[in-house]
Amino acid sequence: MVDNPIAPMTDDEAWEALRSHEFGRLAFHLLDEVHIVPINYAVDGSHRIIFRTAEGSKLLGVEMNSDVAFEIDQYDDETAFSVIARGRATTLEGSAAYIADNLPLRPWVPTEKYNVVAIAVSEISGRRFRLEKPWTSIHTT
Amino acid sequence: MVDNPIAPMTDDEAWEALRSHEFGRLAFHLLDEVHIVPINYAVDGSHRIIFRTAEGSKLLGVEMNSDVAFEIDQYDDETAFSVIARGRATTLEGSAAYIADNLPLRPWVPTEKYNVVAIAVSEISGRRFRLEKPWTSIHTT
Repeated sequence: MVDNPIAPMTDDEAWEALRSHEFGRLAFHLLDEVHIVPINYAVDGSHRIIFRTAEGSKLLGVEMNSDVAFEIDQYDDETAFSVIARGRATTLEGSAAYIADNLPLRPWVPTEKYNVVAIAVSEISGRRFRLEKPWTSIHTT
Repeated sequence: MVDNPIAPMTDDEAWEALRSHEFGRLAFHLLDEVHIVPINYAVDGSHRIIFRTAEGSKLLGVEMNSDVAFEIDQYDDETAFSVIARGRATTLEGSAAYIADNLPLRPWVPTEKYNVVAIAVSEISGRRFRLEKPWTSIHTT
């Protein structure tokens, strides 16, 4: 018990981790399938995850079913963390979409993405892991 | 057109990337919700993604609906790649589960995970990205 390698974050810590990163993975429904894609994102002042997207299966998927999950993580040889959020995705229309211009929302790949989507987060959980990789002392991967 | 920052991998390249990593994210259905979790995995000789899991929502989810998606990615300041696989997850029973003992399936966190799940991959796609992050020359994040 005292040696649990997994420690939960507080909600504040999980949000702080989300705010201090900009790359994660979105899981969404597309008809009866589940899909996952990497995205750049930013967090706005209303506890929403904001991202841009082109037309395509991602936009179609969230417009047909707004239930989504989102994950970020980071690791080194000894520690890792993961934050998972779930919520509802909405495509922002008109002036609402301009919020993206005032966020540190920086696409890493300069393709055209005209649509702005906001995930209103209903659940968030973060965990820190203490890793045990005895094999890294034998050979590096 | 000649300057496309996104280049597709061949299926062989995507499988090779999957084989040379051991950490990814699983997206699965849980009733009418989509969930996402980080997992350690290995690839077996039959184009399947194998992972271990404890009892819990992940196991329950894939047993109720075998449709899953899986993603790995890696990035530095200039390049990134992502591989996405979709398929059907099956909990391996009896001697079939022993396949996990002969794979380089190395949990990073030493919690007890007695169940072995195999994802029979039906679709795989990999992409390489050339990143443009002009802000990294101004300040590091």
